[in-house]
Amino acid sequence: MPEVHLIRRERFNAAHKLWRPEWSKEKNYEVFGKCANENWHGHNYQLFITVKGEPDPLTGMVMDLKLLKQIILDRVIEELDHKNIDMDVPWMEGKMSSAENIAIAIWERLDAAIKSHGAVLHQVRLYETENNIIDYFGT
Amino acid sequence: MPEVHLIRRERFNAAHKLWRPEWSKEKNYEVFGKCANENWHGHNYQLFITVKGEPDPLTGMVMDLKLLKQIILDRVIEELDHKNIDMDVPWMEGKMSSAENIAIAIWERLDAAIKSHGAVLHQVRLYETENNIIDYFGT
Amino acid sequence: MPEVHLIRRERFNAAHKLWRPEWSKEKNYEVFGKCANENWHGHNYQLFITVKGEPDPLTGMVMDLKLLKQIILDRVIEELDHKNIDMDVPWMEGKMSSAENIAIAIWERLDAAIKSHGAVLHQVRLYETENNIIDYFGT
Amino acid sequence: MPEVHLIRRERFNAAHKLWRPEWSKEKNYEVFGKCANENWHGHNYQLFITVKGEPDPLTGMVMDLKLLKQIILDRVIEELDHKNIDMDVPWMEGKMSSAENIAIAIWERLDAAIKSHGAVLHQVRLYETENNIIDYFGT
Amino acid sequence: MPEVHLIRRERFNAAHKLWRPEWSKEKNYEVFGKCANENWHGHNYQLFITVKGEPDPLTGMVMDLKLLKQIILDRVIEELDHKNIDMDVPWMEGKMSSAENIAIAIWERLDAAIKSHGAVLHQVRLYETENNIIDYFGT
Amino acid sequence: MPEVHLIRRERFNAAHKLWRPEWSKEKNYEVFGKCANENWHGHNYQLFITVKGEPDPLTGMVMDLKLLKQIILDRVIEELDHKNIDMDVPWMEGKMSSAENIAIAIWERLDAAIKSHGAVLHQVRLYETENNIIDYFGT
Repeated sequence: MPEVHLIRRERFNAAHKLWRPEWSKEKNYEVFGKCANENWHGHNYQLFITVKGEPDPLTGMVMDLKLLKQIILDRVIEELDHKNIDMDVPWMEGKMSSAENIAIAIWERLDAAIKSHGAVLHQVRLYETENNIIDYFGT
Repeated sequence: MPEVHLIRRERFNAAHKLWRPEWSKEKNYEVFGKCANENWHGHNYQLFITVKGEPDPLTGMVMDLKLLKQIILDRVIEELDHKNIDMDVPWMEGKMSSAENIAIAIWERLDAAIKSHGAVLHQVRLYETENNIIDYFGT
Repeated sequence: MPEVHLIRRERFNAAHKLWRPEWSKEKNYEVFGKCANENWHGHNYQLFITVKGEPDPLTGMVMDLKLLKQIILDRVIEELDHKNIDMDVPWMEGKMSSAENIAIAIWERLDAAIKSHGAVLHQVRLYETENNIIDYFGT
Repeated sequence: MPEVHLIRRERFNAAHKLWRPEWSKEKNYEVFGKCANENWHGHNYQLFITVKGEPDPLTGMVMDLKLLKQIILDRVIEELDHKNIDMDVPWMEGKMSSAENIAIAIWERLDAAIKSHGAVLHQVRLYETENNIIDYFGT
Repeated sequence: MPEVHLIRRERFNAAHKLWRPEWSKEKNYEVFGKCANENWHGHNYQLFITVKGEPDPLTGMVMDLKLLKQIILDRVIEELDHKNIDMDVPWMEGKMSSAENIAIAIWERLDAAIKSHGAVLHQVRLYETENNIIDYFGT
Repeated sequence: MPEVHLIRRERFNAAHKLWRPEWSKEKNYEVFGKCANENWHGHNYQLFITVKGEPDPLTGMVMDLKLLKQIILDRVIEELDHKNIDMDVPWMEGKMSSAENIAIAIWERLDAAIKSHGAVLHQVRLYETENNIIDYFGT
């Protein structure tokens, strides 16, 4: 059977800032620009999760889409939506909340759960804005 | 000369929450749902500003688009982009940062400035998400 | 208080055809083109529901958005999503399932329910495709 | 019968510039900015044409959509698509090719043709870019 | 000469359902959810076909885009648009009309035809909805 | 550290035509279709530039996004926006302005500049229209 990729879009709206506490305010603004605003800003993040596998001969599906959606909701969206990524999310503690780091952390939240259902996580695509996008393919 | 509407899109990314301090946490969550998260969340807001007027016979334009853009940037985007609407924006102080109230406040920030350049503000359209949109046409 | 419009987007995926049983196949194709395919075709419909009213001074909201969403889901989306509009929807019986007629029927499904919660239905916008859109403002 | 609006999207890709020959280059750039580039630039224009009327009781349609599309193609798109608006379009001769003026001219190209088929032209919406949009409702 | 990918978007609107006749209604709904509605539902499918090759030194093009479009229209869109995928499409007979299987079948419809014109089919991307997408790269 | 892809969208509006002067008008139209219009046409091009690298442990970023944006603006957008690609752009001289060739030329404009800042150019994606897209991954 041929390998097929299945992509599911989900969304979350969250606050964050880019700020290193050991740096001065000047240094933070120089490096992070307006993303360093101390009182946070926020985004409507869009997430595209790609899993791959061979379609089941009976269902024609790489993975039960209802199940994939539920895994993403339970392990990612529920944790990030209408949250402050820097204050409310245990698995982002101690990490800069750059889109790069959020995408890597989302991969780690999803990889094993998807594997346990017989598919393979292939790609995490994260839109921070319509102009700034991250792709992560694992290590 | 016929009246024409000119619409300009701009964007800002901001944090906010919906929260009344005199209410209990339970009451706030009951009324505002997940928008009541105390540590804020955020959005990529999209703004569509409509002005109307007769096109200038020499330029064919309702209003100098470069000028309209600059007014929106100076009076609205600069104030809201990468900000916390509840903490960083003097003209939102004391107001719930619902999309309705933000749209009304943006109208008030733009109305006179556009009038002083010979056009008339007609509509403020504010996308909070792809699913939630506000239209305001003034009083 | 000023009047504000609040717009909520929802989506449904449905099958339909345009076909008058008293007409010949030739007449049906002549009038309805490929929409007359007897075995149906389908669309990802997008619905934009606009309600208007004065924002509540305490919440800043025209209407509880969670409630508006629930009314649209209960009275429209639940009835149309993953359905055959010509076979599965009692309130479309005996009507051509043109986008015009669907929009009018959605208005009638929503008008009183929204009024009973203190807002006024203003507009039903229905995208049948990215190129074909209907607006209905009531009678 | 209730009045309904039917909107059809079409697109055209064209070159143009904003330039008044009796003005100096400096004056043209001061007024029109980079749109004054003498060798032209171009856009993917998007056009949304709204017609209104009562749906036909037999077809459920405000107007035969195939016919509306054909009128727009014949009278507007065929004339503008892959053309230089300033050099190739007789009905734009002597007019600044601002989006405002193009929208007005498109109205004049469509108004009578749509009326002759029993519907009424209500709105011409023209996207020059994702950020710059014109609405025209006739005189 | 460097290899370049050329992507063409086309669309089709079709009805389908996910249903195994040898299963009970309960089993079908358990596995396929609301997609099992017996009277069908439908989608506005979006198709992105990627071909690759070296641009022709004279034309600068990987493949004549008019020709690529015509191949997609003749071999795929004409067969699927305004059709019931489960009833009207010979090359989908006996297959579950999951987006995965439709994408694989579209690959098989296009692969040789594109090869015969000197380019190589690289990817079939099929949007079933804005949230559900399939990528297929062949075997 | 894992490799991550960072994608930045920018846009430019430009005029061009597809035309070989040594060919007859008939031959040019036969090969290039309406793109051969001698007086040019134009597009709103969208550009997605992908760079890859390991996120910096201190900033969490593959590359300073402000810097990436500035490189794209300085070396590509400033040169192409509101220009005639066939007349105003020295580095497109002597090349057919097909989307393929523009994408390759943009790669050559960006590759070394991005490398000098510690990241690697991975992909140039160029939308000529919503239906025609080019991907280039270098040689």
